[in-house]
Amino acid sequence: MKKLTAAVLISLAAHAAAAQQSLWGGNELISPEINDDKSVTFRLKAPDARRVEITGDWAPSPLMMTQGNDGIWTLRTEPFSSELWTYRFRIDGVEVNDPSNTHRQRDIGSVSDYFIIDGTPGSYYKNNPIPHGSVTRLWYPSKSAGYDRRISIYTPPGYENSGDRRYPVLYLLHGTGGDEESWLSLGRAAQILDNMIDSGLTEPMIVVMPNGDSDVDSAPGEGTLRERPTFDQPGLNSGEFEKNFPELVEYIDSNYRTLADKGHRAIAGLSRGGYHSRIISACYPDMFGYIGLFSPAFMPPTLPSGIDFYDDYHNNLDKITLRQFADAPELYYLAIGRDDFLYDGNRKFRDNLDSLGIKYIYNESDGGHQWRNWRLYLMDFLPRLFR
Amino acid sequence: MKKLTAAVLISLAAHAAAAQQSLWGGNELISPEINDDKSVTFRLKAPDARRVEITGDWAPSPLMMTQGNDGIWTLRTEPFSSELWTYRFRIDGVEVNDPSNTHRQRDIGSVSDYFIIDGTPGSYYKNNPIPHGSVTRLWYPSKSAGYDRRISIYTPPGYENSGDRRYPVLYLLHGTGGDEESWLSLGRAAQILDNMIDSGLTEPMIVVMPNGDSDVDSAPGEGTLRERPTFDQPGLNSGEFEKNFPELVEYIDSNYRTLADKGHRAIAGLSRGGYHSRIISACYPDMFGYIGLFSPAFMPPTLPSGIDFYDDYHNNLDKITLRQFADAPELYYLAIGRDDFLYDGNRKFRDNLDSLGIKYIYNESDGGHQWRNWRLYLMDFLPRLFR
Repeated sequence: MKKLTAAVLISLAAHAAAAQQSLWGGNELISPEINDDKSVTFRLKAPDARRVEITGDWAPSPLMMTQGNDGIWTLRTEPFSSELWTYRFRIDGVEVNDPSNTHRQRDIGSVSDYFIIDGTPGSYYKNNPIPHGSVTRLWYPSKSAGYDRRISIYTPPGYENSGDRRYPVLYLLHGTGGDEESWLSLGRAAQILDNMIDSGLTEPMIVVMPNGDSDVDSAPGEGTLRERPTFDQPGLNSGEFEKNFPELVEYIDSNYRTLADKGHRAIAGLSRGGYHSRIISACYPDMFGYIGLFSPAFMPPTLPSGIDFYDDYHNNLDKITLRQFADAPELYYLAIGRDDFLYDGNRKFRDNLDSLGIKYIYNESDGGHQWRNWRLYLMDFLPRLFR
Repeated sequence: MKKLTAAVLISLAAHAAAAQQSLWGGNELISPEINDDKSVTFRLKAPDARRVEITGDWAPSPLMMTQGNDGIWTLRTEPFSSELWTYRFRIDGVEVNDPSNTHRQRDIGSVSDYFIIDGTPGSYYKNNPIPHGSVTRLWYPSKSAGYDRRISIYTPPGYENSGDRRYPVLYLLHGTGGDEESWLSLGRAAQILDNMIDSGLTEPMIVVMPNGDSDVDSAPGEGTLRERPTFDQPGLNSGEFEKNFPELVEYIDSNYRTLADKGHRAIAGLSRGGYHSRIISACYPDMFGYIGLFSPAFMPPTLPSGIDFYDDYHNNLDKITLRQFADAPELYYLAIGRDDFLYDGNRKFRDNLDSLGIKYIYNESDGGHQWRNWRLYLMDFLPRLFR
C-alpha cells in the first residue's frame, strides 16, 4: 500500500506540473515587486515586443521599460509614498494589464492593475489581521423600478453575533460611470471601515452602497439591463434615484438591525453621488443627520417633469436649503481638490451657503477628481459620524 | 436661471468628455461582439503590433487575427455552441486580456476574458430577470487556525424575508490553486442556483464556499497570509481542513437558518475538493446525506501524524467506507470526464466501491479536468438534493 501511494504521488506530480502549464498558464514572473525602500520593480516577458512602456496615476507620462537579454522588460522606480497606485503596460502601443498581477480595479470601462505601499493611508486600504466586517451583494425589491436592484452592504465585525444590538447606517454613493461595486473596489471601503473601526477611529456602522443609475438593475454584467460599462447614464441624472431613495432606506431599516433615525443615518457620495447626497438630504430633511459631499458635481442634470421636490429645488435653492437647516444636520461636510475641474462650482455653492449663514465643514485638498482623494475624504469623514 | 443652467450644462459636457479621456481611458471598441448567428467578433486596436493572435479554451491552437487599415485587428469565428468561453489576446507574443472586455475570471494566477453564448447551459451562467439570492463574503472565527477565515455564502432568493423558514445547506469545495472565490467566479454558482431555483429544478438552499487551504485566511490578496495566487498549497493537503470541518458546520448552523441534520446537508467539491468531500463525509458519517465528487483527486497527500481518522482512512479504506455506508447517505455522486488525467484513479475508486457493494450515481462526460465540466456536474447534482 505504501509503495502504491508513492507511485501515485509521483505520477500526480508529473500530471500536476503538466496541468499547471496547460490549464492555468502559470506565470512565474513577479510583478510588481515592492522593494524594501518602497521603490517598485515592474516586469514583463515580451521577447518580441519592440517597445514596452508603463503608464500609471503616478507617472506624468508613459515611462520606457528596458529589455534584458532574457526578453524581460523591467523598470525600477523611485521610492513611492504610501498609497494605492495603479498602472498598465503599453506593449507596442497597446495599453494592457500586467499578466503577472491579479490585483485589478475596474473604473467604468477601464481595468487597471494596482499595488499598495504601506503606511498612511496605504495600510488602511489593506486587509490587516484584525476583525473583518462582512460584505453582501443583495437585490432589494424596488417598487419604483418594478424589479429587483442590486446593492452592496458592509456590516461591521461582530454584526452576526451581536444579538439585538442596533447600528447606525451610512449610505455611500458613487459617481458618473460608477455602480454598486465602485466604493468596494476603487474606494476600498470595506478595508477602510475594518481598519478604522479596529483603531477606534470610527463607530461600527452598516454601510449601504446602492446603484445610483435608476435605469439599470446592477453593475454592468451583474444583472440584465446593462452588459457593458458606460459613462452615458441618463438614469443617473433623471431624478428618479433621489426621488425613490426612501424605499431603499425603508428596506434597509426593515432587514438590518439599524438605528432608524436621523441621528444615526448618514449619506455621502462623490461627484454625481455628491450631488445626489445634497438633493436627497435636502428633499428628505428628516432623514439624514450627517451629510458628506465629496467633489460634488452640482451641475443640474436634465429634469423630468412632475417631480415636485426637484422643481422646488431648482426654482429655489435657498428655500430648500433653509428648510433643511431649520432642523440642522449634525454635520454638513464638503471636500474638493484644488485641481478639480468642479472647483469653481463648489466655490459658488459654498458662497451661497455662507450667504445663508449655514455652517459646514470644508476640506480642501491637493489633487483633482480622483479616487485617491475620495478614499481620503471618506477617512476624514468617518470619524465625524454618530459621535 | 434657465440660461445659466444651459451654460453650465454645456461647460460640463466639455469637461466630462475631457475627463472621460484623461481619467478613465474610454475604450469605444466593441469586443467581443456576439453576432446573431452566435459567431463572435473579436477586436483589438494595435496599429503598431506585428502579430496579434487569440487563444481560448475553444481554440486548439492560437488563431491569427487580421489587421485592417484602421489598425484594428479582428477575427470572426464560426458559430459557438452555448457555453461560457474564455480567451486572451497574444500581442507580439505576450498573452494579455482584451482591453475592451471587463468580464474576466481569475483561475489561480491567470486571468482570462470570458463571454457567454445563450442556450443550455450558457443561459444558466447568466443573470436573468428572476429573483436573485444574496452573496456574502464573511469571516468566521476558526478555533483551529486561531484567526478568522473568509468564506463565501449564497443564500437563496427571499431568505431575508422568509421569517423562521429554515433551509438545507450545500458545502461546495474548490480544487488545488482555488479558494473561496472559485465557485462564484469560475463556477458561476450564484447564477446557476438562481436560475435552477427559479425553474423549480432544485430546492432553495444555502451554499457555503470555504477556503480549503488551512494555511491561509482567504483568497490571495483578500486577507493577510497570501498575496499572490499559487498552485503550491501545502495547507490543502495537510488534513487540517478535513479534520476541522465541523467547526465550520457549527458556525453556519449557529448563524444561518439551516436545517441542521444529515438529511438536509450536502457536500461536494472538484478535484482536491472532491477528495476533501470524500474524506470529510467518511470521517464524519453522521454529517452529510448528499455527497458529490466532481473529478475527484484521490491521490493521497502527505499526511501529518496524529490525526486519527486520517490514519484510519489510509490504513483501511474499506473499513471507513463501510462505516460511512452503514447508515448510507441518500446520494453518493461521482462525475469525471473521459479525458481527465485522473480518470484511471477514479476507475479504481469505483471498482472498490463496486466490490464493497456500495451504490452510487456515476456521470461520465466528455472532456477533461476543466470548469466547463464542473459547472455541468453541479447542474446535474443540484436536482438530486434534498428531495
